[in-house]
Amino acid sequence: MDDHVYKQVRLTGSSTQSSDDAVRRAIARAAETINHMRWFRVVETRGHIEHDKVQHWQVTIEVGFTLED
Amino acid sequence: MDDHVYKQVRLTGSSTQSSDDAVRRAIARAAETINHMRWFRVVETRGHIEHDKVQHWQVTIEVGFTLED
Amino acid sequence: MDDHVYKQVRLTGSSTQSSDDAVRRAIARAAETINHMRWFRVVETRGHIEHDKVQHWQVTIEVGFTLED
Amino acid sequence: MDDHVYKQVRLTGSSTQSSDDAVRRAIARAAETINHMRWFRVVETRGHIEHDKVQHWQVTIEVGFTLED
Amino acid sequence: MDDHVYKQVRLTGSSTQSSDDAVRRAIARAAETINHMRWFRVVETRGHIEHDKVQHWQVTIEVGFTLED
Amino acid sequence: MDDHVYKQVRLTGSSTQSSDDAVRRAIARAAETINHMRWFRVVETRGHIEHDKVQHWQVTIEVGFTLED
Amino acid sequence: MDDHVYKQVRLTGSSTQSSDDAVRRAIARAAETINHMRWFRVVETRGHIEHDKVQHWQVTIEVGFTLED
Amino acid sequence: MDDHVYKQVRLTGSSTQSSDDAVRRAIARAAETINHMRWFRVVETRGHIEHDKVQHWQVTIEVGFTLED
Amino acid sequence: MDDHVYKQVRLTGSSTQSSDDAVRRAIARAAETINHMRWFRVVETRGHIEHDKVQHWQVTIEVGFTLED
Amino acid sequence: MDDHVYKQVRLTGSSTQSSDDAVRRAIARAAETINHMRWFRVVETRGHIEHDKVQHWQVTIEVGFTLED
Amino acid sequence: MDDHVYKQVRLTGSSTQSSDDAVRRAIARAAETINHMRWFRVVETRGHIEHDKVQHWQVTIEVGFTLED
Amino acid sequence: MDDHVYKQVRLTGSSTQSSDDAVRRAIARAAETINHMRWFRVVETRGHIEHDKVQHWQVTIEVGFTLED
Repeated sequence: MDDHVYKQVRLTGSSTQSSDDAVRRAIARAAETINHMRWFRVVETRGHIEHDKVQHWQVTIEVGFTLED
Repeated sequence: MDDHVYKQVRLTGSSTQSSDDAVRRAIARAAETINHMRWFRVVETRGHIEHDKVQHWQVTIEVGFTLED
Repeated sequence: MDDHVYKQVRLTGSSTQSSDDAVRRAIARAAETINHMRWFRVVETRGHIEHDKVQHWQVTIEVGFTLED
Repeated sequence: MDDHVYKQVRLTGSSTQSSDDAVRRAIARAAETINHMRWFRVVETRGHIEHDKVQHWQVTIEVGFTLED
Repeated sequence: MDDHVYKQVRLTGSSTQSSDDAVRRAIARAAETINHMRWFRVVETRGHIEHDKVQHWQVTIEVGFTLED
Repeated sequence: MDDHVYKQVRLTGSSTQSSDDAVRRAIARAAETINHMRWFRVVETRGHIEHDKVQHWQVTIEVGFTLED
Repeated sequence: MDDHVYKQVRLTGSSTQSSDDAVRRAIARAAETINHMRWFRVVETRGHIEHDKVQHWQVTIEVGFTLED
Repeated sequence: MDDHVYKQVRLTGSSTQSSDDAVRRAIARAAETINHMRWFRVVETRGHIEHDKVQHWQVTIEVGFTLED
Repeated sequence: MDDHVYKQVRLTGSSTQSSDDAVRRAIARAAETINHMRWFRVVETRGHIEHDKVQHWQVTIEVGFTLED
Repeated sequence: MDDHVYKQVRLTGSSTQSSDDAVRRAIARAAETINHMRWFRVVETRGHIEHDKVQHWQVTIEVGFTLED
Repeated sequence: MDDHVYKQVRLTGSSTQSSDDAVRRAIARAAETINHMRWFRVVETRGHIEHDKVQHWQVTIEVGFTLED
Repeated sequence: MDDHVYKQVRLTGSSTQSSDDAVRRAIARAAETINHMRWFRVVETRGHIEHDKVQHWQVTIEVGFTLED
């Protein structure tokens, strides 16, 4: 990291595939409105169960992005 | 929850009535600018004391809302 | 507390009325199968939002009860 | 808050009525010996159960007060 | 979530394949005795190492299920 | 640990002798109804004071046991 | 604090001078887009090391500001 | 616990004998100035090492006592 | 540390200069009524913002002092 | 675990593939200098984002290994 | 403590006797390779259960030692 | 960060000047034996008090460094 100022937002992505995929989907969706994303940190991993199986993985991440001048 | 992506924001509401009311007021105010709010989680309950009595309850919540397509 | 052994279970009660009422409802429901409940501790307070209002308060508690001889 | 020095004490109030009332009672009792209380923060919410009902709410708060010159 | 009362239990699943698979196996095993499972939350991810490789992923989850009437 | 699925329960044991003894008593009592206990983790150590002395040590543990096939 | 509703954002400022200066720079940058900032809380203090010296202090803060009517 | 208001203080006791003994000594010393002590909770267990041996166990506890009328 | 019993109190100092100075001012003020202070630990660093600048640093510390015989 | 003494070290592995793979790579690299590794625990999962995609998963683990005689 | 620089390592000792003894054994073993140990802090207390009894106490400590010039 | 594997160590530096200076001194001392240090994170800020003044700032940091091939 250099001398920029970063802002952080919390997002929850979900996926029927895997916990990693839930992270990727949260970032892909965030990219529609946030520029200059630099890193993420996993805050919580949860999921929804239906008929005794994991139906959705739901992963909450904190995403840091640069406030550009 | 389904396969949406959620964003979370932290808000602090205050009320002279009760801790629950401080939550309701934070959500009511947030509704002016945020759509599709789905859930909240209480992060901290504080208050302001004047003349030996609780003057304001101040409750910080994390509110999750759907990022719509 | 005396020299009994206690067991603890986690329950989440919900209420349209208040956060306190969600606790009372969790305990009332637990009383159908658990005897000798002695104390509870609030672990988390959340809620469900619909149409910009708190629809349900959802409070998770840890309930301690005596293992009787 | 201004440039005073604050001291904080931990108190547990109890009430048969509600969790908010337990906070109010802790502050009312503390007012007998502490001046210049300014704020509180809820540290823990517990309770005592008898006959399958909440008998007492027991709320622990941290109270901040000004050390006056 | 609606107005049910939920109970939560802690389970640790293990897998030689992946951390996600350890979660799935814990839920599959729990399904033999627990009905109406609704969600899970990952509490801890550990593993066993043998001959310098991950031999088992061991993931502890908290599973919430509805107490049916 | 091997590829079993474990369940965990929280218990509080008490003893007039020592904190370690409170753990042993919780496990001894649990053995009446739980088979295949494998490990424990201390969650909290508290105690009851009477006449300015520790009357009971009260130790809360999380006990893991194998769900057998 | 009075009866306003506050929103909180997380920012990371950096400085080659000091940890305090990293806080000041995060607030100065945030002032370009956020009005009515009222308080901050330090969440994490980190830094970047180059050639065995602290090159940047990086301090993450939570900033609270009033949602004005 | 009944409907009293409790105050809590943090104390660190030390002992060359054992961690439990450090707790007992903190309570014995506190009894010189505090009446009506009811319970304690262990906050931290540390120790001082000299010549590769534990010289003192140092245990920090939170002690709750009744504010009498 | 030797075999004394220590008591700990929480104080919040404030300073317009720096976070370190807020610690020093809390200790200086505490010295008017507390003898034998031995150590402190920073619990929280906050601040008050006015006109987009840090107006006061507010640092909460836990101060340990010896209970003398 | 038996009666050995274990030492624990913190390592951060990274991978362009998955979070699990980052754990495996940290352990593989550690095996060059550490013998008798027995278990790991995930401490934090982060990642680096470039061009709106996860470029590296970065997982910090605590690895326990036996101090052999 | 004076103006030295300290390094900290995490160790887990085990004992069939008591939790305190597990600490002592971790320190005794560490003394074979670490000089100038000064203090420890208990991080976690666990244990292994066999035949419904505590077979080993396993205590993880953080040990601080002086980096000598 | 790139695809290296990092190791982390905990160090406590002390300084009579400031908390930031205690960090710098820990890093300067560590540089005598550790190469390729990349970042640090503040874990705890404490201090020693003598004659009612801060005599030493003692800051514990976690330092990450690259394991080079």
